[in-house]
Amino acid sequence: MPYMPHVPVHVSLVTVIEIVAILVGAFSGFVEARRKRMDLVGVFTVAFITAFGGGTLRDILLDRRPLFWVMHQEYAILIFVLALIAAPLMRTLKQILSERLIVIADAIGLGLFAVAGVSQAQAAGMPLFIASMMGVITGIFGGVLRDIVCNEVPMVFRDGKPYAICAFFGCWLYIGLQYTEISDDVALWVSAASITVMRLVTWKFDLHLPSDK
Amino acid sequence: MPYMPHVPVHVSLVTVIEIVAILVGAFSGFVEARRKRMDLVGVFTVAFITAFGGGTLRDILLDRRPLFWVMHQEYAILIFVLALIAAPLMRTLKQILSERLIVIADAIGLGLFAVAGVSQAQAAGMPLFIASMMGVITGIFGGVLRDIVCNEVPMVFRDGKPYAICAFFGCWLYIGLQYTEISDDVALWVSAASITVMRLVTWKFDLHLPSDK
Amino acid sequence: MPYMPHVPVHVSLVTVIEIVAILVGAFSGFVEARRKRMDLVGVFTVAFITAFGGGTLRDILLDRRPLFWVMHQEYAILIFVLALIAAPLMRTLKQILSERLIVIADAIGLGLFAVAGVSQAQAAGMPLFIASMMGVITGIFGGVLRDIVCNEVPMVFRDGKPYAICAFFGCWLYIGLQYTEISDDVALWVSAASITVMRLVTWKFDLHLPSDK
Repeated sequence: MPYMPHVPVHVSLVTVIEIVAILVGAFSGFVEARRKRMDLVGVFTVAFITAFGGGTLRDILLDRRPLFWVMHQEYAILIFVLALIAAPLMRTLKQILSERLIVIADAIGLGLFAVAGVSQAQAAGMPLFIASMMGVITGIFGGVLRDIVCNEVPMVFRDGKPYAICAFFGCWLYIGLQYTEISDDVALWVSAASITVMRLVTWKFDLHLPSDK
Repeated sequence: MPYMPHVPVHVSLVTVIEIVAILVGAFSGFVEARRKRMDLVGVFTVAFITAFGGGTLRDILLDRRPLFWVMHQEYAILIFVLALIAAPLMRTLKQILSERLIVIADAIGLGLFAVAGVSQAQAAGMPLFIASMMGVITGIFGGVLRDIVCNEVPMVFRDGKPYAICAFFGCWLYIGLQYTEISDDVALWVSAASITVMRLVTWKFDLHLPSDK
Repeated sequence: MPYMPHVPVHVSLVTVIEIVAILVGAFSGFVEARRKRMDLVGVFTVAFITAFGGGTLRDILLDRRPLFWVMHQEYAILIFVLALIAAPLMRTLKQILSERLIVIADAIGLGLFAVAGVSQAQAAGMPLFIASMMGVITGIFGGVLRDIVCNEVPMVFRDGKPYAICAFFGCWLYIGLQYTEISDDVALWVSAASITVMRLVTWKFDLHLPSDK
C-alpha cells in the first residue's frame, strides 16, 4: 500500500472505534431510507453514505487516501448484505430495539467517530481548531449527507439539540488530555465516552440550545 | 502532463466510451434543468454535473487527477455551446426524439460509463467489490447529483427499477471475463452491451425490484 | 508545510482578496440559515460552507492542499465566534444594513472570489476555459452549496439574473489582460472590479438573461 500515510501508534484502537461506529451509522441510514420508501439501491446507498460519509469527507478534505472503506471492502460487502435483507431485518429489529436502544447506539457511534476524526486530523498535522472541526465533521456529516440525499434540511442543523456540540466538547477534551500524563489510548476512550454520556444526558433531560427564534 | 497516471492499454477505447456517455448525460441534464425552469447558468451546470458528476466523484474518491474534463476542455466547451442553444434545440429534439430513443441512448450511456468506471478503478488497484461499486457510481451518480441539485430525492434510489442493478451485474461480468481468454477490449464492449441490453429488457417489460413497501 | 504548492508572485494580494470575500460569504450564510430557523450548529455550518464552499470545491477539483481555511484556522474561529453572537448581531446588522449595502458587499465578494479562482487555476496549469470555470465555481458555489444544504434549488441557477455570467466575463477579462502590458496585480483588481460593477449595473436595471420559459 504505497499511499499509506504515517500511522500513529493507536491505529488499531482507532480502527476498532470506526468499525463499531460504521455499523451504527448504517443502521440509521437503513431506517431513514426505508422511511422514504427507497428501493434496494437507495437503502444500500443511503446506509453506506451515513456510515462512511463523515469519514470520507474528512479524508477528502485532508487528502488522505486510500479511504477506509476502500482498504476494507469487507465493510462495504457487509452493508450490501444487510441491505439485501433489510426489509425483514427492519421488522425484526423494530421488535427488538426500543427508541432508547437506538439513541444509545447512536450516542456511542457519535463519540467513537468524533474522537477518531480529531485523532486522525491531528496525525495529519492539522491546527487544533481545524482538528476539532474534523472530529465533529466525522461525527455528524454521515447524517448530514444522508439528509441531503433524502431531500431534507439536515436534522442536526435545525433541531436545537446539542448533538454536534457534545462532539465538539469531547474533541476538545481529547485535545486537552494530551497535555496531561494520561496515555493516548485512555484519552481516546475517555473522550469518546464523555461524548456518549453528554449526548445521553442531554437527550434524557431534553436539553436544547438557547435560541431566540 | 506530469500528473498523468499509469495508463492501461485500453485507454483509447475507454476514452471513446466516456465521450459518448458524456453527451447522453448532458442531454439528460438539459431535460431536467429545463423542466425545473432553470436559466442558462442552471442548464449548463446541471448538464455538466449530469455528464461528468459520476466520473468526477469516482476520481475524487480514487484521488486520480487531472480529471477527465480538465484534460479535455473541448467537452466543457461543447456542453457550454449546447447550453447556449438549448432552448430551440430542446424543441427540435423533442420533435425528433421519442421516449424510446432517449431510453435507448441513456441505456447505452449507463453501460459505457459503468464499464469505464470499473476498468479505471481496477487500474487504480481497487479490490473487486470496491471496483464494482466505482463502476456503478460512475454510471449512476451523474443522475444522483443532478437530482440533488434539482432538489429531488434521486430517482435511481426510489423508482424500484433495476437501473443500478444492471450496471452492477455488468461490472461483475467484466470482472469475470478477466478470468477467461477473452481480450480486455472485447470484455469491455461485451460488458457494456450486456448492461444496455439488461436495462432495455427490464424497461420493455417494466420489471421492478421485489419490494414489500 | 510540506504540501505547500508553488506560490505565484501575487499570493499576498490573492490572500487579501479571499479574506474580504469570506466575510461577505459568511454573512450571506448567516442570513439564509436564520431564515431557515436553524440552530447554532446550522448557522455556523451554513455560514462556513457559504464562505469556503466555492474555494474548497475548486481546490478539491484541482487537488490543491492544504485548503485555505485549514492553513488559516483564524477564519474558522472568526466565523465560529460570529455564529455564537449571530442572533443579536443579526438584529443590529439589519438595522444598519440596507438591501443595497448587502448587494454591494456581495458583488464585491463575487468579483474577488472569481478572480482569485481563475488566477489559482491558471497557477495550477489549467487550460483557459477550465480556468474560467474554476473562477465562476469559486464565485458561486458557496451559495450553491448553501442552497443545497438549506434544501432549495440553487438561486443562482433559476433567477435568470446574470450573476454567474458577470463572473464568467470578468474571468475572461483577466485572462485577456495577460496578453497586454498590464501587470498581474493590476489585472486582478481591474477584473474583480469589473465583475462587481457588471453585477451592480445588472442589479440596478434589473436585467435578466433572455429566456423563453
